[in-house]
Amino acid sequence: MKLAVVGLGLIGGSIALDLKAAGFVKEVMGVDDNAAHQEQARILNLVDRITDLKTACAEADIIVLAVPVNHISILLPPVLDSISDHATVTDVGSTKLKIAESVKKHTKRKRFVASHPMAGTEHSGPSAAHVGLFKGRAAVICDADESDPDCVKIIEALYGALQMRLISMKSAEHDLHAAYVSHLSHISSFVLANTVLDKEKDADAIFNLASGGFESTVRLAKSSPSMWAPIFEQNQTYITEALGAYIDRLKLFHESLTAQNFNQTKKYMEQSNEIKRVLSELGNAGGKNAKK
Amino acid sequence: MKLAVVGLGLIGGSIALDLKAAGFVKEVMGVDDNAAHQEQARILNLVDRITDLKTACAEADIIVLAVPVNHISILLPPVLDSISDHATVTDVGSTKLKIAESVKKHTKRKRFVASHPMAGTEHSGPSAAHVGLFKGRAAVICDADESDPDCVKIIEALYGALQMRLISMKSAEHDLHAAYVSHLSHISSFVLANTVLDKEKDADAIFNLASGGFESTVRLAKSSPSMWAPIFEQNQTYITEALGAYIDRLKLFHESLTAQNFNQTKKYMEQSNEIKRVLSELGNAGGKNAKK
Repeated sequence: MKLAVVGLGLIGGSIALDLKAAGFVKEVMGVDDNAAHQEQARILNLVDRITDLKTACAEADIIVLAVPVNHISILLPPVLDSISDHATVTDVGSTKLKIAESVKKHTKRKRFVASHPMAGTEHSGPSAAHVGLFKGRAAVICDADESDPDCVKIIEALYGALQMRLISMKSAEHDLHAAYVSHLSHISSFVLANTVLDKEKDADAIFNLASGGFESTVRLAKSSPSMWAPIFEQNQTYITEALGAYIDRLKLFHESLTAQNFNQTKKYMEQSNEIKRVLSELGNAGGKNAKK
Repeated sequence: MKLAVVGLGLIGGSIALDLKAAGFVKEVMGVDDNAAHQEQARILNLVDRITDLKTACAEADIIVLAVPVNHISILLPPVLDSISDHATVTDVGSTKLKIAESVKKHTKRKRFVASHPMAGTEHSGPSAAHVGLFKGRAAVICDADESDPDCVKIIEALYGALQMRLISMKSAEHDLHAAYVSHLSHISSFVLANTVLDKEKDADAIFNLASGGFESTVRLAKSSPSMWAPIFEQNQTYITEALGAYIDRLKLFHESLTAQNFNQTKKYMEQSNEIKRVLSELGNAGGKNAKK
């Protein structure tokens, strides 16, 4: 089987490496419109050959779109136009509803399987790609009933080869959960970094005092703005709701501090501690094996 | 030299283990009013012997107070009352001003060195203690001019033996920086966990979808409420200010989402990315060696 990966960043590059290593595909073609990324992908041996999109669509059995979500929406219709009849297209975007809408009426809609492997790090680009990124994490397949069964089957097998746990849901449901469980974490981290950087004009103070806790909490603030701005755009409704809910609860916490009601702050923290159970289940399921 | 550690949790237990391993002290006495913690400390060999506070104060050359900050404020005056003339007392509290106030007029004030080793994990109790927790992290010594030079010297040597970087500042300055760089991260994480737990009543949804990014951002939400409520109480003024600043910036981000001004959200994220440089310096300084 021939695989084409469009977008050779952290996710695309890791998929290329992992599927070749697992023997799931015989050949991997790589497409990237960034010349520097092409060059890095060559040096790092992420793919067997770099090609253009037209060749990739004509030759590949599976095409994975691993570019920012706004580019997925733009690329998906012409990619479906130009694939061979037996080929399957999937995407790895962090939003699903807008991408699904971009091909709602497409005559080849059924050759597309919408998916989202829920893995990543704060790093980006070909050099961030590595084997094992996906192991134990969730791969969400959305609106499977809108795709041909053979296409769903091959994409399920693809994520199986990446050792991911398969989950099935509707696009809208995915986007709502992702807003809370993934997108909101990024905003909380981006804005925490901003708040501390604004106050500590002298970066040395942060450098001197920051402990592992701070590092962990602002880690996602290193993420790529070019990747995240389109996610916020495509999932604007749910993310705005999630951020509003976060701000409301922070205000309650702030009120308990202002009122010096420390029993109340303690109660809030005791409720937060429930997350231990959730994260421990995650660890037991092998999620901890993924690179942090 | 004989060391007494009062409070055999993550920090106290790790100090006991590390200073004995480094050969900095000959004997370590442990004091803890929790019988289960005493038993765990015995089983884990954190200390050479468990003793009561009175014996510890009478026999020790160095006494480290590693209990929650409200207990430090209560314990510090009677501990100073009962130490031998040559002994030195330090504390490891995450707040410094209120603790300093508790012994401002004490006749033995100069035998006390206020300090804060900026290291920790989200775990607590004797079983969380481990060697290497402090390596490469910052140890802040506050108001050194209020302490006898021999006391400052021995506490500097103690943190040197833990392989920490020494920093000197005033208590008020420490509490302001700690509010932004440490205490605020904990609140952002506690409240993020609450927001997601409230929305995802079915914990399975979080378990199924959470990726490494979410785990990292809510890690601190596992922290001990009994330890943190007193920190919020003692550093209420600065923490309220820091949380207010965080909420203000989150509101701006929320406004840019509501107005669909994604160029603005991108600009905020680009500013956040500056944190990369700070964290990379931290990594180079060896901070990354500490357990995360």
